[in-house]
Amino acid sequence: MAKTPETEHPVKAFGWAARDPSGILSPFKFSRRATGEHDVQLKVLYCGICHTDLHLLKNEWGVSVYPLVPGHEIVGVVTEVGSKVKKVKVGDNVGVGCLVGSCRQCDQCANDLENYCPKQILTYNMPYFDGTITYGGYSNNLVADEHFIIRWPENFPLDAGAPLLCAGITTYSPLRYFGLDKPGLRVGVVGLGGLGHVAVKFAKAFGTRVTAISTSLSKKQEALERLGADEFLVSKDEEQMKAAASTLDGIIDSVSAPHPLLPLLSLLKPHGKLILLGVPDKPHELPVFPLISGRKLVSGSGIGGLKETQEMIDFAAKNNILPEVEIIPIDYVNTAIERLVKSDVKYRFVIDVAKTLKPE
Amino acid sequence: MAKTPETEHPVKAFGWAARDPSGILSPFKFSRRATGEHDVQLKVLYCGICHTDLHLLKNEWGVSVYPLVPGHEIVGVVTEVGSKVKKVKVGDNVGVGCLVGSCRQCDQCANDLENYCPKQILTYNMPYFDGTITYGGYSNNLVADEHFIIRWPENFPLDAGAPLLCAGITTYSPLRYFGLDKPGLRVGVVGLGGLGHVAVKFAKAFGTRVTAISTSLSKKQEALERLGADEFLVSKDEEQMKAAASTLDGIIDSVSAPHPLLPLLSLLKPHGKLILLGVPDKPHELPVFPLISGRKLVSGSGIGGLKETQEMIDFAAKNNILPEVEIIPIDYVNTAIERLVKSDVKYRFVIDVAKTLKPE
Repeated sequence: MAKTPETEHPVKAFGWAARDPSGILSPFKFSRRATGEHDVQLKVLYCGICHTDLHLLKNEWGVSVYPLVPGHEIVGVVTEVGSKVKKVKVGDNVGVGCLVGSCRQCDQCANDLENYCPKQILTYNMPYFDGTITYGGYSNNLVADEHFIIRWPENFPLDAGAPLLCAGITTYSPLRYFGLDKPGLRVGVVGLGGLGHVAVKFAKAFGTRVTAISTSLSKKQEALERLGADEFLVSKDEEQMKAAASTLDGIIDSVSAPHPLLPLLSLLKPHGKLILLGVPDKPHELPVFPLISGRKLVSGSGIGGLKETQEMIDFAAKNNILPEVEIIPIDYVNTAIERLVKSDVKYRFVIDVAKTLKPE
Repeated sequence: MAKTPETEHPVKAFGWAARDPSGILSPFKFSRRATGEHDVQLKVLYCGICHTDLHLLKNEWGVSVYPLVPGHEIVGVVTEVGSKVKKVKVGDNVGVGCLVGSCRQCDQCANDLENYCPKQILTYNMPYFDGTITYGGYSNNLVADEHFIIRWPENFPLDAGAPLLCAGITTYSPLRYFGLDKPGLRVGVVGLGGLGHVAVKFAKAFGTRVTAISTSLSKKQEALERLGADEFLVSKDEEQMKAAASTLDGIIDSVSAPHPLLPLLSLLKPHGKLILLGVPDKPHELPVFPLISGRKLVSGSGIGGLKETQEMIDFAAKNNILPEVEIIPIDYVNTAIERLVKSDVKYRFVIDVAKTLKPE
């Protein structure tokens, strides 16, 4: 007979889980595997709330397995290490992002691109190598292979830094890969939510001139004064958009809702790059003429490999790049999820797990 | 009073023109400008028939100006040069492709990318600097600035080589720009018409392993035996497509008719590139998930700059790359256009202008 989540592993754990597609989270007892020789056990301190959590809590992608403990922007402190672990020691602050496993053998893994490994194992809601389902960071502890552990930079905030483990790497990686990290380039950022506001900060840190692009004027002051954007464009203002035509080298588009790509392609210079980070319910309409007449490209990007995630965190610490966060107690999480649906957060919720998650 | 096409310039010219959106071509007398100090005058020997000719003859893009003399795959022999011309001399064989002018000052022009200059002047159906409309190569002569003249390689066929000036550069340029020119890479070519069959030949010459992709088996033998493709995939055969998933580094898609992109994206490895060369009537549907999960990109490409066109012709001559052509007399041109609509040509019509175009 299959064991229960509470008894299948030796290490006691507790957290908050959704039990069904209502997505409502409530306290949940489960267990973690014993710390293997390459494993690191950590006490969770903080965990960010990502949009992905919301989709999976409610089974919007049809792949959710309940009970489901979300959370993949995890910062913690090491409490135990396996005999062969070299990367960290007990007492070190560490991060765990979206991945806890991959095949370690394919071309992608060999090139430090575990995020594109077809056998990647996500930090929650996926079968691990032993067949048990992974549980995320809305919980008191975590056990992960050291390969998937990020060393936390000294003196770098543990709370506000947590969202970098997903939102940070998701924006940093395409800016690097698509060459949008050179001083003097002009980069647009569409959507100023959890991803977009971090994209503005990284793009600025790379020395590019950043245009924040939003459907309404309401975010203008904040984008310019708080996030550091150089320009602000209202995408529904045809005159503004026309005046800005052919001025951008690249655009990071963080919007998940369906929206027209043509106005964004028009903002790009020849050879410009439109990078999509949000997955809408249905396909976008792709006009081909601007791609051909300007050799523009449309692509996407998903998180980043472990090596690049470490590089990103170190870069963020060195350049003092921190997401804007609202720290919440775990028992506020259902309200936070509701607010996230309405984009009512500036700009990321982070759960103070260590101080507020109590065993029942 | 505006002058007639026959009298607006001093150099007498004749060719075949469409007079209205029926697209029917018939003999037409007009004129060319005097050979300026940077100009080259040539006698047209051969001219390829491109799909673009068909669209413009019938005003399918709504931009046609009648009378319209098509033709932008032009090979000729120099009959006169301006006093400052250095590139060629009388008697030289030369080519003229899709462009006869550009601003020569913008970033694109400065980077030898006249094909992306916003002020580019096409070889026919566009106002030249003097305000007169350009006429193409279905005619006895042509006058063009030497910058837009291609030196023809010695001993390289004048007839079969003509289509390289559009179909050749249109496929060569993206293979180069997107890095699909490295031995060992795997390149797919969708659509085996005028563009596709040349793409197969260039991709092979670069040392890649080429998969020809077609909707039906009918072109298999020819693709493998005549064009030199290594593999053949029937895009409507789901099993074949599934077996070939994630195997290609890039795809050159030459099809203009609307068609689903998802099956093509599925053929790409992570970080693979889908390059569109055909413009369908309506936007493609772009599924975003494969772009994000595999960092795949969709782009396009339009012809090439003059420097690269010269490089392409020299490469073709060195590697003996020639389009497959059917040579026709000028009075067959209307029938040829009808056959082109039905894709009834292997693979490009070339008009023997010098031997068959007679003044009325």
